[in-house]
Amino acid sequence: MGIENLEYFFNPESVAVIGASSNPEKLGHSILRNFVENGFEGKIYPINPKGGRIFNLKVYPSVLDVKDDIDLGIIAVNPNISNEVVKECVEKGVKAIVIITAGYKEIGGTGIERERELERIIEGSETRVIGPNCLGIFNHNGVDTLFLPEYKLERPKKGKIAIIAQSGAFGSVIMDLASYNEIGISKFISYGNAVDVDEMDLLEFLKEDEETDCVLAYIEAIKNGDKFKKKMKEITREMPVVILKAGKSKKGSEAALSHTGSLASSYEIYKGILKQFGCIEANNVERMLDFGKALSFEKYAIGERVAVVTNGGGFGVLSTDVIERTGLNLIEFEKRTERKLRGVIPEYGRIHNPLDLIGDADPERYKKVLEILNKAKEVDAILIIALMQTSSMNSDILDVLIEFKEKSRKKFVVCMAGGNYTSLHAKNLEKVGIPVYPTPERATFALKALFDYGKYLKREKVI
Amino acid sequence: MGIENLEYFFNPESVAVIGASSNPEKLGHSILRNFVENGFEGKIYPINPKGGRIFNLKVYPSVLDVKDDIDLGIIAVNPNISNEVVKECVEKGVKAIVIITAGYKEIGGTGIERERELERIIEGSETRVIGPNCLGIFNHNGVDTLFLPEYKLERPKKGKIAIIAQSGAFGSVIMDLASYNEIGISKFISYGNAVDVDEMDLLEFLKEDEETDCVLAYIEAIKNGDKFKKKMKEITREMPVVILKAGKSKKGSEAALSHTGSLASSYEIYKGILKQFGCIEANNVERMLDFGKALSFEKYAIGERVAVVTNGGGFGVLSTDVIERTGLNLIEFEKRTERKLRGVIPEYGRIHNPLDLIGDADPERYKKVLEILNKAKEVDAILIIALMQTSSMNSDILDVLIEFKEKSRKKFVVCMAGGNYTSLHAKNLEKVGIPVYPTPERATFALKALFDYGKYLKREKVI
Repeated sequence: MGIENLEYFFNPESVAVIGASSNPEKLGHSILRNFVENGFEGKIYPINPKGGRIFNLKVYPSVLDVKDDIDLGIIAVNPNISNEVVKECVEKGVKAIVIITAGYKEIGGTGIERERELERIIEGSETRVIGPNCLGIFNHNGVDTLFLPEYKLERPKKGKIAIIAQSGAFGSVIMDLASYNEIGISKFISYGNAVDVDEMDLLEFLKEDEETDCVLAYIEAIKNGDKFKKKMKEITREMPVVILKAGKSKKGSEAALSHTGSLASSYEIYKGILKQFGCIEANNVERMLDFGKALSFEKYAIGERVAVVTNGGGFGVLSTDVIERTGLNLIEFEKRTERKLRGVIPEYGRIHNPLDLIGDADPERYKKVLEILNKAKEVDAILIIALMQTSSMNSDILDVLIEFKEKSRKKFVVCMAGGNYTSLHAKNLEKVGIPVYPTPERATFALKALFDYGKYLKREKVI
Repeated sequence: MGIENLEYFFNPESVAVIGASSNPEKLGHSILRNFVENGFEGKIYPINPKGGRIFNLKVYPSVLDVKDDIDLGIIAVNPNISNEVVKECVEKGVKAIVIITAGYKEIGGTGIERERELERIIEGSETRVIGPNCLGIFNHNGVDTLFLPEYKLERPKKGKIAIIAQSGAFGSVIMDLASYNEIGISKFISYGNAVDVDEMDLLEFLKEDEETDCVLAYIEAIKNGDKFKKKMKEITREMPVVILKAGKSKKGSEAALSHTGSLASSYEIYKGILKQFGCIEANNVERMLDFGKALSFEKYAIGERVAVVTNGGGFGVLSTDVIERTGLNLIEFEKRTERKLRGVIPEYGRIHNPLDLIGDADPERYKKVLEILNKAKEVDAILIIALMQTSSMNSDILDVLIEFKEKSRKKFVVCMAGGNYTSLHAKNLEKVGIPVYPTPERATFALKALFDYGKYLKREKVI
């Protein structure tokens, strides 16, 4: 259907929690509590035929008993009655509903029948549906249908990356991981069986969302290939989309079929299509977040000519290996650049790429080298490896890198590898929009994602 | 020279810190403090021509002024006098010396000359030398030549994995990472230019070390190919050796040459040789630690027939993809096994491999499924994915997995992906020797390392 009314999922003025319960073990209890306790500023209507009060709110037997308009309905009831409840929502004219309830297509048999019935119920109505069989939505305004407690599934801080996930389990893991790694998220949507709203609708919506700069999408199958082909370029020309495609192998496709009931077709075909339509493919959940950081902070890079700066020779060697493997270009510096570098790198350091500032490099040496690289026409992007374990390295490196970020014309990513002291510095850099990675390999793949997206934007004449 | 006298590096009864200083900025100060403060129980002799007292210990002008025997000498002086100091150590009959001082072969020019002179000095003596240009040694008995403060380079807890690293920077990072991830280490050696003791001597020594079950080695170049070929199988037949080979690409080899002054030859040749001699190759520092955990806890696995158990369908799909990619065998269960599984997995779960116990699986359901798999002859090893975010999952999963570890005949690795709650549980499993990984991909590659090592042991008729 497109993006009509999708706004109601994320910024409703009134919400009905259908299946609201005073029993803390029920999903409807957890979801209601999220809205009550997380600062949602709209109206909240608990719905349960039993009536009474929950969290000091009046409980209505049905949405039909609520006099005011309802923007968002969240359905967390037994599958035996969920379609009935949807029918009432449609009758009431609820703008958007999230069906948390599982027991549809994904269970086969009677579930398939239940999903067909659901399709018939919503057909032709203006009510938009996310789900069934999903975790639903998280937004920073108190909209939070994730029925899992925060100690199990931590909610990330606010940031510019949106996450969409067909699989609820995958969605909960990536949210939890993002939070753990202090990666900021704009919005999260787990959309399950996608009976109405699918990944393309969500991507279209997020393209227009001012709070979102990049989308990470976990997809087992593209529901509607024509829609994908028609719409995807409009989206990727505006905003980077990172896709983790599960079900790549033959057996993986079979497993996906039983999981969300959708047939994942040949991975090789997907791979080509994703690339053609400007999507950045990630191989696993770590890489997905890695790419998200780079793309939301730096958006893209052009040229593929990379310089490496390190204070640990071994890490320069490892970077060289992986740069060669990814097909990026570890350039040779021009003679003029090398002469300048010779002036600031000690005799036994290395003025060829990868630059080895050696173990006694202090932040000041980094600063001088980065200033030279900033003026080197032959350099498009820089992999800066700053190992925090050495005697000469200290927190001043933060000022050096932050200043470089402000005035540099070069794209760059940082590799910092180590324990608590290292993590502390890495997180402070990420707070100001500098992507940091724990290995040269992960940093290089993130750089590759920036170049891949740049190449696409150039091919499409966007830049 | 082999492993004669190597014991003195790790368990000296007396140690001389040459270049000991009261100036906290000097390496000799940090190293002396390590010995004084970390519970080293032998005698400690600070050496400095200036004399006086440091840390309330009498300072001797030279090792020649010390009347008692000296087992271990640690040299942290200016490169202009380091060879002179080595000469005195040889004259004194110091059993083992670690030359921290840099400025040898790795800087080219005069450094090459200095290294040749060093070779001449130690030639024919019984004094064993680690270094120059290295971080040296860490052992849990207070022997700690790492001159970097603990807040920058955390020291890992005691465990069964030994680490050897040609590169000091790499060594400090992997130690710091091991500590951060609570991975236990038996011994650590950064051996730099390897003028005497090289990776093969260390491996031979560690093979006999009762505290070590597995070695992780970062190697830029094998110094002596004949020694490698002669000795490596003796080692790998006894103990798994994980090798991260840097300098794989052409440019990487060049970078390695300038880093430790050794020429890394073609990676393809190395790759074949490593495999032939039973070494497990790791591609990056994360994977190195991943493999170390699996191999030190489980040692090996035989057969390559893998079962996957998950409570998150998406993770089953992702596992299938990576299992197929690694060439392991995601087996089809026998009909008898499937019948039993049907009895404990709900109707809408999946009784084919990968098993999907679905989102409402509790630890009890895992227990029943694992009991069935334990009896399934067609299964060699199990990838157990336990996502801690779901409502039904709780800390009882620890008891289930620990009990399974005790009575199971199957090898297994665990994948737990998430934030703080997840990490807490993962760390508790690792305390009792169950390897846990943050992604299905990393868990699968660890499983692959177990199978690779098992295949080698079988080929060599060790098992």
